[in-house]
Amino acid sequence: MTTRRFEPIDSGVTPRFAGHATFMRLPVVVNPREVDVAIAGVPWDGGTTNRPGPRHGPRQVREMSSLIKRVHSVTKISPYELCRVADVGDAPVNPIDLDRSLESIRAFFAQIVAAGAVPLSVGGDHLCSLPILRAVAAKGPVGMIHFDAHSDTVDTYFGGLKYTHGTPFRRAVEEKLLDPKRVVQIGIRGSTYSADERGWALAQGMRIITIEELEDLGVDAVIREARRVAGEGPTYISFDIDALDPAVAPGTGTPEFAGITSREALRLLRGLRHLNLVGADVVEVSPPFDPSGGTALAGANIAFELLCLLAESFAARKA
Amino acid sequence: MTTRRFEPIDSGVTPRFAGHATFMRLPVVVNPREVDVAIAGVPWDGGTTNRPGPRHGPRQVREMSSLIKRVHSVTKISPYELCRVADVGDAPVNPIDLDRSLESIRAFFAQIVAAGAVPLSVGGDHLCSLPILRAVAAKGPVGMIHFDAHSDTVDTYFGGLKYTHGTPFRRAVEEKLLDPKRVVQIGIRGSTYSADERGWALAQGMRIITIEELEDLGVDAVIREARRVAGEGPTYISFDIDALDPAVAPGTGTPEFAGITSREALRLLRGLRHLNLVGADVVEVSPPFDPSGGTALAGANIAFELLCLLAESFAARKA
Amino acid sequence: MTTRRFEPIDSGVTPRFAGHATFMRLPVVVNPREVDVAIAGVPWDGGTTNRPGPRHGPRQVREMSSLIKRVHSVTKISPYELCRVADVGDAPVNPIDLDRSLESIRAFFAQIVAAGAVPLSVGGDHLCSLPILRAVAAKGPVGMIHFDAHSDTVDTYFGGLKYTHGTPFRRAVEEKLLDPKRVVQIGIRGSTYSADERGWALAQGMRIITIEELEDLGVDAVIREARRVAGEGPTYISFDIDALDPAVAPGTGTPEFAGITSREALRLLRGLRHLNLVGADVVEVSPPFDPSGGTALAGANIAFELLCLLAESFAARKA
Amino acid sequence: MTTRRFEPIDSGVTPRFAGHATFMRLPVVVNPREVDVAIAGVPWDGGTTNRPGPRHGPRQVREMSSLIKRVHSVTKISPYELCRVADVGDAPVNPIDLDRSLESIRAFFAQIVAAGAVPLSVGGDHLCSLPILRAVAAKGPVGMIHFDAHSDTVDTYFGGLKYTHGTPFRRAVEEKLLDPKRVVQIGIRGSTYSADERGWALAQGMRIITIEELEDLGVDAVIREARRVAGEGPTYISFDIDALDPAVAPGTGTPEFAGITSREALRLLRGLRHLNLVGADVVEVSPPFDPSGGTALAGANIAFELLCLLAESFAARKA
Amino acid sequence: MTTRRFEPIDSGVTPRFAGHATFMRLPVVVNPREVDVAIAGVPWDGGTTNRPGPRHGPRQVREMSSLIKRVHSVTKISPYELCRVADVGDAPVNPIDLDRSLESIRAFFAQIVAAGAVPLSVGGDHLCSLPILRAVAAKGPVGMIHFDAHSDTVDTYFGGLKYTHGTPFRRAVEEKLLDPKRVVQIGIRGSTYSADERGWALAQGMRIITIEELEDLGVDAVIREARRVAGEGPTYISFDIDALDPAVAPGTGTPEFAGITSREALRLLRGLRHLNLVGADVVEVSPPFDPSGGTALAGANIAFELLCLLAESFAARKA
Amino acid sequence: MTTRRFEPIDSGVTPRFAGHATFMRLPVVVNPREVDVAIAGVPWDGGTTNRPGPRHGPRQVREMSSLIKRVHSVTKISPYELCRVADVGDAPVNPIDLDRSLESIRAFFAQIVAAGAVPLSVGGDHLCSLPILRAVAAKGPVGMIHFDAHSDTVDTYFGGLKYTHGTPFRRAVEEKLLDPKRVVQIGIRGSTYSADERGWALAQGMRIITIEELEDLGVDAVIREARRVAGEGPTYISFDIDALDPAVAPGTGTPEFAGITSREALRLLRGLRHLNLVGADVVEVSPPFDPSGGTALAGANIAFELLCLLAESFAARKA
Repeated sequence: MTTRRFEPIDSGVTPRFAGHATFMRLPVVVNPREVDVAIAGVPWDGGTTNRPGPRHGPRQVREMSSLIKRVHSVTKISPYELCRVADVGDAPVNPIDLDRSLESIRAFFAQIVAAGAVPLSVGGDHLCSLPILRAVAAKGPVGMIHFDAHSDTVDTYFGGLKYTHGTPFRRAVEEKLLDPKRVVQIGIRGSTYSADERGWALAQGMRIITIEELEDLGVDAVIREARRVAGEGPTYISFDIDALDPAVAPGTGTPEFAGITSREALRLLRGLRHLNLVGADVVEVSPPFDPSGGTALAGANIAFELLCLLAESFAARKA
Repeated sequence: MTTRRFEPIDSGVTPRFAGHATFMRLPVVVNPREVDVAIAGVPWDGGTTNRPGPRHGPRQVREMSSLIKRVHSVTKISPYELCRVADVGDAPVNPIDLDRSLESIRAFFAQIVAAGAVPLSVGGDHLCSLPILRAVAAKGPVGMIHFDAHSDTVDTYFGGLKYTHGTPFRRAVEEKLLDPKRVVQIGIRGSTYSADERGWALAQGMRIITIEELEDLGVDAVIREARRVAGEGPTYISFDIDALDPAVAPGTGTPEFAGITSREALRLLRGLRHLNLVGADVVEVSPPFDPSGGTALAGANIAFELLCLLAESFAARKA
Repeated sequence: MTTRRFEPIDSGVTPRFAGHATFMRLPVVVNPREVDVAIAGVPWDGGTTNRPGPRHGPRQVREMSSLIKRVHSVTKISPYELCRVADVGDAPVNPIDLDRSLESIRAFFAQIVAAGAVPLSVGGDHLCSLPILRAVAAKGPVGMIHFDAHSDTVDTYFGGLKYTHGTPFRRAVEEKLLDPKRVVQIGIRGSTYSADERGWALAQGMRIITIEELEDLGVDAVIREARRVAGEGPTYISFDIDALDPAVAPGTGTPEFAGITSREALRLLRGLRHLNLVGADVVEVSPPFDPSGGTALAGANIAFELLCLLAESFAARKA
Repeated sequence: MTTRRFEPIDSGVTPRFAGHATFMRLPVVVNPREVDVAIAGVPWDGGTTNRPGPRHGPRQVREMSSLIKRVHSVTKISPYELCRVADVGDAPVNPIDLDRSLESIRAFFAQIVAAGAVPLSVGGDHLCSLPILRAVAAKGPVGMIHFDAHSDTVDTYFGGLKYTHGTPFRRAVEEKLLDPKRVVQIGIRGSTYSADERGWALAQGMRIITIEELEDLGVDAVIREARRVAGEGPTYISFDIDALDPAVAPGTGTPEFAGITSREALRLLRGLRHLNLVGADVVEVSPPFDPSGGTALAGANIAFELLCLLAESFAARKA
Repeated sequence: MTTRRFEPIDSGVTPRFAGHATFMRLPVVVNPREVDVAIAGVPWDGGTTNRPGPRHGPRQVREMSSLIKRVHSVTKISPYELCRVADVGDAPVNPIDLDRSLESIRAFFAQIVAAGAVPLSVGGDHLCSLPILRAVAAKGPVGMIHFDAHSDTVDTYFGGLKYTHGTPFRRAVEEKLLDPKRVVQIGIRGSTYSADERGWALAQGMRIITIEELEDLGVDAVIREARRVAGEGPTYISFDIDALDPAVAPGTGTPEFAGITSREALRLLRGLRHLNLVGADVVEVSPPFDPSGGTALAGANIAFELLCLLAESFAARKA
Repeated sequence: MTTRRFEPIDSGVTPRFAGHATFMRLPVVVNPREVDVAIAGVPWDGGTTNRPGPRHGPRQVREMSSLIKRVHSVTKISPYELCRVADVGDAPVNPIDLDRSLESIRAFFAQIVAAGAVPLSVGGDHLCSLPILRAVAAKGPVGMIHFDAHSDTVDTYFGGLKYTHGTPFRRAVEEKLLDPKRVVQIGIRGSTYSADERGWALAQGMRIITIEELEDLGVDAVIREARRVAGEGPTYISFDIDALDPAVAPGTGTPEFAGITSREALRLLRGLRHLNLVGADVVEVSPPFDPSGGTALAGANIAFELLCLLAESFAARKA
């Protein structure tokens, strides 16, 4: 097992637009045993109920991540000095077959977990989080800090279908992948199918912080609440890009008006240091609906924040 | 006369992208006697002084309104349980003839008013509000809560023309459709033709809350002030999409930098419950200048907020 | 059973951008017994192997079909005088469940066929043609004139999957819905998975006219050949929009360079009068990849040509 | 009166993207007495029955005309050596008032004609051609070579309106501005309101060459026919950009599938040398529907071809 | 020397889309002696390290500045009443030759300065500020209030290159054009090449206010701090459009997530009245990456704010 | 030295949108000794005189080349069976420094040539062809078949600059890299700076086939003429994407109206089999001006045709 660290290509030497696009301009390393934090794409949107496109998300986020440099300017974290980080490629997927895709995604991430690495996934639609959780939480339920416009805890769609991008976290609770009492959902908003749409989640003990509550409490209080809910246990972070305001991230399948601003998003994420993180994802970036590329840019920045959190948490566990 | 209520198509059964696009996925009902709140399009932009396109607004807002679900997640209002709501189609218009259009729009809304229904109109440019007010205020002046970057109370344009999208509310005051002392304009900003451009409106007693004042006062104080000005009498709400920041709503004819954010807009509208509302409109959505569709998305969300307000107000009057 | 004919809205009275968008500005008629040619949408792209989006095709083709007028300027056919034509809405679909969708689409078109009407479908991806053929060819195999860049007769994709938009016509032959000796494919081109990719189709007796052969033979000879192959029996026309050059129709899932020009397409279709037509479709219009709307415009024009052919054929059978 | 000639800015010295955008990078000269061929914009689209936007045409064609160099590579004509050519600015227009605009446009071009200059106009919608013809044909009817998808000889729209972009040449014949026997229309196509829609034009003696006839005859025969019809008398050329195929020129109000190709267009125009030309226009370039800028690029190139024709014709008359 | 003042074209008479696009619809005046505030374009992006395009900025900002009216609605300043303001055209540039361009830009602005006028420049990339400072600070170092996502004080790029858009202010300090102790940088953010990337600037005495500090301090405190740093001496304002959030200004070469909002930007600029201003610029507007035009709209508005500041400052010095 | 052949990823197993984008989905192989045909990107546009952007060409062509399959459907060539083909990455470039870039590009290709491999380059602007020719023709002049709208044999630009994308082939002749008598230029068109602009090239003995001559002669005759000119000697093919009609390829720096159609382009290239080819390039794909992606799609298809030609020629030499 190598202990080689990986460095992004230096954009002060090789321009950002040159070379193959990989996450953060990192090398491609296919053996998960060689990495500590594995950045993977999941180019699949077979759970999408409305506008499709997140299957194209990983490539476009890779492209935009060329803009990210080595060091976090606020925390001064350079993840590449803390541990071994690389682009491990895309999970195998099948755009036609939902069941096989859920299994092949799970198996891909199970390998990463088995190798001792922490996965950072770039989707793909939000159903992708379910097979990742099956890998990450194979040994017991995890907590989750979940940024989203939607709770994604609907029971079924379209006549009883249990697996869509609106249902992953209901399934994850049922499968005991998530401990609902350690789940907090931030940025929830928008019209609902029924007045009680969020009732099931609340009944399980999930903490829902709507965009209105976020605005009333302020970012710092939300951070404290999120940390309280997640606690000390193993925790996953899932960031649906539609948590952000559509002015920031129009390129997504079910844009929801009046969301989290870009500055709030960064501040919230930066408030999540020193948790016990076992994985993270950013999902629902849909390039066909993103004419300015702003959504992929948001995705790349969110991914970098998550990377810094994961690297620091990984390093702390190893220390 | 039927008392049948109308329901939007259930997006948990029929996907959002399926079927003909109607406002809020509601049925089309052409007889205004069968509805309480009549959502109508006004595909006309003959009063536009700069970039055209709002004639295409109604269709695109219909398309984007497929994203809206049945229940308001904050107020828990479901307008479809409070009263009969339907898409009554588009007012007849004539893209070449301003005079005929003003009359045919007025007559269309007069029928709605005569049937006892409350109109919710989706424009079209802002001159469309004038013939609607002629219908709504036929029996006496109304108050107005007006969201806009511009006061729209210029006297004339282009050598004495009295009917443009920059003049409707001057005409409405002159025609005694609006009681200027019960008019509040929110979000006004941008450079002006003269230092005294807003003088006429102020002299009539209108209350102008510029974006700068909004920022200084805060949303809650603005709500109180708007409610104070509008008072108990019959009130109309007119929402020019250019009240919003161009980052949120670029697709409009005269975008004005640095406007109302999406979250402020929702909070402002949600502060207007329990007024005596007689109609509302959202105008100036111009799809040809809206590459990401964000402006139409904004229009659909504003329309839903207005719908909830109108339905609640209608139901309260009937109670 | 009514004998009422339906007329498009007159764009000389009501502007093209006004009112709800329906196919050809026709009324919506949900009962297939009231129509002779039933124009239906199939908003489904669950068989798509590459870029998604045709689920949004029906709405966008409806929108663009507002540009089409009543009478064909070359043939002088007005389909609305020959028979009853209406927009019958969209087939029920399920974006997550391929099997259910294939069945619900089939059942929808079986109702149309059972009512004695001829279906004109606007997709949707090309797999949609399979369930339509199951309805149209329920009593025996039909011939097909097929415009496409691809033969769509691959056996399986992605590890044995038999139902994708690259396989419908292999399945249709296997299911004896198509008589391969009465099938002609026009416009086939592009790189292939193997040197023998088209071997199966040829072995069945299908006639493949590549774009190179089309160019060499000329349009008139291709028409003669297509008519010879299709013969006198019941015949279906399937038009994949990617048959057209990507300059004409960029908005499609697998654009193939150097295709049929718009003028060739019209001339080819106009050469297919007086066949015994039992249905037709235009598929693979993908609005998210169509920034200028040109692909949907092409789709609407192809649909009108098909409508004229179907109406004339229907009327001839009734005469 | 000056005899100074004007030169475009040299793009080998000053890059194309630098400086104010004027037609062909020519100086702005407001006094028509100082020019022989006056290139003018008409930023007006008040006669538009469908998608608006040609009011933005002149600016965008100016922008794209920066790509045009000094000399015609086929004819070797350099118009700037043959006569005085300049950008004379835009005709005064009123986006709200049709009647005033028709008069102010007419007066603007009457001044140009009175000064002895030949106008080359960049629209604007096609109704703009009517007031220009009123100026150009003030002393007697002219012939016209007219490139268009539509005959534009409808009588009235929307309940009797006589002035729209679908009616200019009916009015022009009625007003004896055009000699219909010297009018040829090239590229006509598309569905029609009625089977006899082109009957009036034909009855007046106009020669209509549909796109189908153009394809059958070939470009050279069409040139001969156009020259035969126009004859020796004073002749105007009007080029509606929708004559071109929508793949070439998508940015227009009523795009019509399957039109003239770019190479045919140039060859046709180059066949019109040595006529007795009294003016020309290119109209219906609508930038809001032109995401790639290709339509404005087409407009600039058509304008340059027209300029070469006008300059040569002017010089021949002066010789 | 004339004392003629210049007025923008009145958009209440001539529509905004009509006529040649100049900055603020002002006349073009090529002799700098005739103006007090000279608005100039610098269509050059030869220092760009990533996505190119600002060479097209001046034309597009001119186009969008047609939306700006005569009077500042908050300060009531009308710059055209305070002094002579005109569009003086573009600085000569060479897209291939960096050295010559730096010199020709410098010489162009030196002429403006020599004529006693104050330059307001619209770029172009940020390296353009260096030659302008060479003109403006020819007689001694100036202070600077600098809005940007990046400090632009890197030493070298790409193997020792000293002149890029990431290095201008390091050069300016070295050349004693800037007094670093009178420089404040506002809005700095984003990942960095190294943990000490901003160390050089700080070591020189520059004051860096990151976006995080701006958010913590509030706009009013930042204004006070900026005024304190700049002091009474001659001061330049440089506004890189990427200081703004990418939702507001996506069209720029190195967009940096989570920036200054539009309202903050205006409030910050309005806090800079009554300084001793010797010039200003707005740079890095890149139209090819700006599908909605919002970035150019931002550029035009920032330019107008700067114009009001410069005009007031100029007038105060002359009083 | 390995004799391993490389295969593209099988799109029937791994969907086209999955995984890192490489040319033709081939592996990345950095050692040129391991390949026979080396596909390389040149992300540089420092010679561009007008709209920039080709620096982004290699990545976008890689992305679109995912659509290309293994076998040429007309020639049945599968280049991967004939020789070793891989993506060798991008040449090192410097967006600020023209001289260094010309040298680093040359050195990169010199290594490829020295290794015995044949380069297929994807630009980048057309000046990139010069350093490639310096590598390819190091031992003596080569012939060239050159597709372009422009001759690119201007002497200097912008005051004597000898190295721009309008000058590469003048330099190449001067440097004896090209044998002008073995150079044929196809598709040349558009307005010119002077009547004699192409005189120098003709005087050297180059054969220029304008678009007009191509249309008159027909494709087959042009192929014969091109083969006659190029003869038996070592030959390079350079394909400027602006050779194509702007409807096909709008995303380029100096689009020239009325160019080569996509079908003509393929037929022309397919006529160039069995020449003695020593390299090829496709240049001037500019993604920022390519909203539909059609230009990059064209680039990918042209690259595949070139690849088949190079592979066959390489294999023939080795046989």
